[in-house]
Amino acid sequence: MKVGVVGAGLVGATAAYALTLRGSCSDLVLTDKDEPRAQAEAQDIAHAAPVSHGTRVTSGPLEALSGSAVVIVAAGANQQPGESRLDLTGRNAAIFRDLIPGVAAQAPGAVLLIATNPVDALTDLATRLAPEHAVLGSGTVLDSARFRHLIARRAGVDPTHVHGYVLGEHGDSEVLAWSTVTVAGLPVEDFMAARGLPWTPEIRAEIETGTRDAAAHIIGGKRATYYGIGASLARIAERILGDRRAVLTVSAPTPEFGVSLSLPRIVGSGGIEGTVMPRLTPEEQQALEASAGVLRQASEGLEN
Amino acid sequence: MKVGVVGAGLVGATAAYALTLRGSCSDLVLTDKDEPRAQAEAQDIAHAAPVSHGTRVTSGPLEALSGSAVVIVAAGANQQPGESRLDLTGRNAAIFRDLIPGVAAQAPGAVLLIATNPVDALTDLATRLAPEHAVLGSGTVLDSARFRHLIARRAGVDPTHVHGYVLGEHGDSEVLAWSTVTVAGLPVEDFMAARGLPWTPEIRAEIETGTRDAAAHIIGGKRATYYGIGASLARIAERILGDRRAVLTVSAPTPEFGVSLSLPRIVGSGGIEGTVMPRLTPEEQQALEASAGVLRQASEGLEN
Amino acid sequence: MKVGVVGAGLVGATAAYALTLRGSCSDLVLTDKDEPRAQAEAQDIAHAAPVSHGTRVTSGPLEALSGSAVVIVAAGANQQPGESRLDLTGRNAAIFRDLIPGVAAQAPGAVLLIATNPVDALTDLATRLAPEHAVLGSGTVLDSARFRHLIARRAGVDPTHVHGYVLGEHGDSEVLAWSTVTVAGLPVEDFMAARGLPWTPEIRAEIETGTRDAAAHIIGGKRATYYGIGASLARIAERILGDRRAVLTVSAPTPEFGVSLSLPRIVGSGGIEGTVMPRLTPEEQQALEASAGVLRQASEGLEN
Amino acid sequence: MKVGVVGAGLVGATAAYALTLRGSCSDLVLTDKDEPRAQAEAQDIAHAAPVSHGTRVTSGPLEALSGSAVVIVAAGANQQPGESRLDLTGRNAAIFRDLIPGVAAQAPGAVLLIATNPVDALTDLATRLAPEHAVLGSGTVLDSARFRHLIARRAGVDPTHVHGYVLGEHGDSEVLAWSTVTVAGLPVEDFMAARGLPWTPEIRAEIETGTRDAAAHIIGGKRATYYGIGASLARIAERILGDRRAVLTVSAPTPEFGVSLSLPRIVGSGGIEGTVMPRLTPEEQQALEASAGVLRQASEGLEN
Ligand SMILES: NC(=O)c1ccc[n+]([C@@H]2O[C@H](COP(=O)([O-])OP(=O)(O)OC[C@H]3O[C@@H](n4cnc5c(N)ncnc54)[C@H](O)[C@@H]3O)[C@@H](O)[C@H]2O)c1
Ligand SMILES: NC(=O)c1ccc[n+]([C@@H]2O[C@H](COP(=O)([O-])OP(=O)(O)OC[C@H]3O[C@@H](n4cnc5c(N)ncnc54)[C@H](O)[C@@H]3O)[C@@H](O)[C@H]2O)c1
Ligand SMILES: NC(=O)c1ccc[n+]([C@@H]2O[C@H](COP(=O)([O-])OP(=O)(O)OC[C@H]3O[C@@H](n4cnc5c(N)ncnc54)[C@H](O)[C@@H]3O)[C@@H](O)[C@H]2O)c1
Ligand SMILES: NC(=O)c1ccc[n+]([C@@H]2O[C@H](COP(=O)([O-])OP(=O)(O)OC[C@H]3O[C@@H](n4cnc5c(N)ncnc54)[C@H](O)[C@@H]3O)[C@@H](O)[C@H]2O)c1
Repeated sequence: MKVGVVGAGLVGATAAYALTLRGSCSDLVLTDKDEPRAQAEAQDIAHAAPVSHGTRVTSGPLEALSGSAVVIVAAGANQQPGESRLDLTGRNAAIFRDLIPGVAAQAPGAVLLIATNPVDALTDLATRLAPEHAVLGSGTVLDSARFRHLIARRAGVDPTHVHGYVLGEHGDSEVLAWSTVTVAGLPVEDFMAARGLPWTPEIRAEIETGTRDAAAHIIGGKRATYYGIGASLARIAERILGDRRAVLTVSAPTPEFGVSLSLPRIVGSGGIEGTVMPRLTPEEQQALEASAGVLRQASEGLEN
Repeated sequence: MKVGVVGAGLVGATAAYALTLRGSCSDLVLTDKDEPRAQAEAQDIAHAAPVSHGTRVTSGPLEALSGSAVVIVAAGANQQPGESRLDLTGRNAAIFRDLIPGVAAQAPGAVLLIATNPVDALTDLATRLAPEHAVLGSGTVLDSARFRHLIARRAGVDPTHVHGYVLGEHGDSEVLAWSTVTVAGLPVEDFMAARGLPWTPEIRAEIETGTRDAAAHIIGGKRATYYGIGASLARIAERILGDRRAVLTVSAPTPEFGVSLSLPRIVGSGGIEGTVMPRLTPEEQQALEASAGVLRQASEGLEN
Repeated sequence: MKVGVVGAGLVGATAAYALTLRGSCSDLVLTDKDEPRAQAEAQDIAHAAPVSHGTRVTSGPLEALSGSAVVIVAAGANQQPGESRLDLTGRNAAIFRDLIPGVAAQAPGAVLLIATNPVDALTDLATRLAPEHAVLGSGTVLDSARFRHLIARRAGVDPTHVHGYVLGEHGDSEVLAWSTVTVAGLPVEDFMAARGLPWTPEIRAEIETGTRDAAAHIIGGKRATYYGIGASLARIAERILGDRRAVLTVSAPTPEFGVSLSLPRIVGSGGIEGTVMPRLTPEEQQALEASAGVLRQASEGLEN
Repeated sequence: MKVGVVGAGLVGATAAYALTLRGSCSDLVLTDKDEPRAQAEAQDIAHAAPVSHGTRVTSGPLEALSGSAVVIVAAGANQQPGESRLDLTGRNAAIFRDLIPGVAAQAPGAVLLIATNPVDALTDLATRLAPEHAVLGSGTVLDSARFRHLIARRAGVDPTHVHGYVLGEHGDSEVLAWSTVTVAGLPVEDFMAARGLPWTPEIRAEIETGTRDAAAHIIGGKRATYYGIGASLARIAERILGDRRAVLTVSAPTPEFGVSLSLPRIVGSGGIEGTVMPRLTPEEQQALEASAGVLRQASEGLEN
């Protein structure tokens, strides 16, 4: 079970590290146009393997991707303080036009897992650039994790007990689908009441802001975000490698919205194997359509 | 099961991330004199918890360490390109004199796991500064991992199949105890012969250099090393938390050498529970004594 | 981290095996009045440790429980084909009166995790016999797993995607709380609709019967049930050992119902740390009260 | 990732349970000529999945094996008290002649992992009956685990710290290769000396007897052995599924000995990918040849 990582920057390397620590694959190869960096990252990660599960971690040129079951694409520029994800579109689209056909040629049969931002537009683009491949974007898997983390903190439980989806764009227009939130299986307001914990519009607003601004806040404090996304990418890759048919809010072209965006989707060895549309409130539905609108506009000019 | 991390820089944060990805503890708190950094790191790591095992990750002042079973100390300056680990002694000893008594006071009963360099001298110092605590240094756990990784690559096996110890200083004088090396249980030369693989003095020399220069090489390519050490710290902490009585080359004051250095030691909930001295060749034994000499000299002036 | 198992029969040994395979503890001791059986089970399980996570598995007399953080009690008679769980009450209560005070004396500070049937009545009894100990029963953790398994099969997803509680008695009067069921976070009927899967009263009835009759059905085919309960006990024990504060439907004395029964409860190192009562439909609430009534009646004559 | 199990008796079901508890595969199917038993075992195991990693566990006819990456074969009679493994030869060979061609037809491309005894002779036979398949036997993986467990107990360490091979027959003539034994990387006698522990010919003899008689002893106390072998089978299957290229003492036809027996072999997705012959003492070498002689004799009459 081999995983390839294209773009051994903070995000790509952290995803590779997460896969190594969890023993999710037997072989892992990092590739980057900055070869010394890819080599140094691969070495540092390889030193984690003897005290983990023995994954063989190497670096190499694009050809080294051959035989990968999953290729994670995290190459490209990332947000600078003050920039939004959409500001990256042009630069990263150019990189993708250059890069993806080669990746596709070297790794036939691999599922391509896109992380580069803006992830929805680039998933769309990668789908067109690699028409024979299953392609999906990390989408709002990370945003859903952030949302759950903040709810869990309020509820005083560990975050695996919280369920709830963030849908639409991985970005400012994303939809926090409160109607899907449960804590330990109870509607969030019931859980809070049962535990005698406060639950007010202010707290909800604070969680909304916290979710939406998490990246900006972390970038403010440490210049980049990579731990959360690294773990999210590892999780998605594991579900593909193990053919788990797990439900994750990954991004993919969605005909009814005319663009790539995140909905809960069944993920297995073939990539996306179905979509499970939750029943949203009218407000949520409207917000989702608005988010799709933002994405459609952002995608203009990316028509391959 | 709570773990504290003091110094939420690259090493401390990466160790916390590794613990979160593996679900090694239920609670994790990061503390740093740079509070916004600790907060941003804790947030980024916390976003990995919902897609991992639900660890509750927070940041806070020193008081937040209360209740920790293990405290990892990674605060301090790290090597710049061209610097050796010992160059850091004065600066980091000053930080320890300031910091360790407070850590000890806030986390009575915790095992202190030291990562800051030069790790042997600082383990020595921390032992004196926290006389009621079990203290150990990450020592050559990382170097042993690097050594095994390089042998594994030559042997064509996964690195968990390689055994072998690096002893003495975590630094230039460390001893690669070739006499302890086995691959899949066979002496390394037998394994290579059985697989028809080359095994020459040149290859051994290359592995020696590769092990000793790994940090410098990685620092050259990516400015700092943190993945290997983060996983090593997580592994040591797990062995303490789970009372595993595992054998690891951690650093601790060693009366027969008059200084702290690494030997294979049994690690459990009480910290170090014994030492298992392998039979070395005369050359290895001599090199170990020389390494102890280097360390004794470096420790001068650190007498608390 | 030591776990004790009292009663090394099919259930006790299987729980010990599950803990060993998952590496949930460092030490495991089995005790049984049939000493050769405990010894043979411990040996067979111990042979799994070298190919798992190295747990030390031994057998011994009651004194060997000393130092355990959790003691699983699975001693006693089990159901014969045609018997209900309540038929075991008298025999197993007598065993408990004999056994529990000794267990409590040997393992001060341990959380007692009761598996012996009828588990609710015996949890009640054990609570009185070990007044200084935290005591909980495996309750409907297993029944909830069975319920989820059957729903997952219909939904075509893996069973970790299904949430839903079985409450009340671990036995015929248990309440399948359909109002708490979600699949991938969607109400079960929404999920089935989204996937184009049938969902009818007949299917629900089939799942109800399947859950309630699972034990009888398995006993018919293989004489006893132990895999599901073994994994459930391991899961509960792990949550206690790791202080996870996880929500599980374990059994404990419940003042508002005047008897021990299962509700979703927060489980951590101190045993039960709270209860999270879901909002039930009036029918479910009534069924829960009826179940409590059955249990109160069954407990009569067990007043220590 | 699907695993099939043929023969849902104690051994087959326990292996399936181990795979489920560790989440080693996404799908697991049990098949047995006793269909109600296969169904009951699959159900009981399936109830472990919701509290583990969500494996989908089912039962079915031979056709249900389709799509398996590994098929574990544990169908057949097992030893009764007083019987040796070789006494089972005729009965189980007949079952194999009947069964294996059908298994091979239903699961093209699967690696066949044989557990039925006498495992060496039946691995030989299965290799001939399924000439297109990679076939290997569990061999002395279990015996090596037993050997390590007994040494670990004497050494006071956890058994993952002990290395050492049992070679040749899975049976009375097996060779305990003491020359390959290390504890925490030290030759066993050095480790014992370093820890001040006794190490005498009597202790070695006791460990030899304990290893060789483990099965008989366990069968005496609980009628059958299945936990150790179940975990061993799970481990081997995991190494195949994950293409780990791990070294395990599995059984396979070995031209230089003219029969199937166990040597340390590299196990990956293609089954056995190489053999690593340790340097044995002359006595060990001779004992290995004697063991091969026993096996050759036992194989007579099995020439398909
Ligand atoms: N999807 C998410 O949730 C999420 C979260 C965080 C970051 N990101 C995105 O991930 C991307 C990477 O971020 P980062 O922090 O790792 O950045 P980084 O600058 O650390 O790394 C980017 C790497 O890509 C490499 N690269 C650039 N062009 C390349 C090419 N043509 N071929 C090969 N490699 C090339 C660079 O050399 C560099 O090593 C950014 O677009 C960022 O916005 C996404
Ligand atoms: N033991 C090993 O094998 C190993 C390997 C790599 C690095 N290291 C060492 O680990 C240390 C940390 O390296 P890094 O890369 O994380 O450095 P870093 O600069 O990224 O982080 C160091 C952190 O320590 C904090 N800090 C400094 N003084 C403090 C104080 N008094 N109280 C609290 N926090 C304080 C800083 O604010 C900073 O966040 C260095 O000494 C480095 O040499 C050890
Ligand atoms: N809670 C659940 O969900 C659940 C599920 C299955 C079984 N069970 C119950 O678990 C219990 C055990 O079932 P089993 O299948 O393992 O039965 P078993 O007959 O295989 O084992 C019972 C063991 O208890 C031992 N024992 C009896 N009295 C003892 C004493 N005084 N001290 C020490 N040991 C004693 C016996 O020697 C025997 O080894 C039964 O009561 C059964 O109904 C509970
Ligand atoms: N390799 C080892 O280290 C090791 C260890 C223990 C047991 N074993 C062997 O494993 C085998 C199984 O032992 P067990 O304890 O599970 O026995 P068991 O009697 O519990 O189970 C054997 C199963 O095989 C089934 N079976 C028989 N013929 C069949 C056929 N033609 N098609 C399908 N299924 C068939 C039976 O119905 C039964 O369910 C025995 O040969 C035993 O000696 C091997």
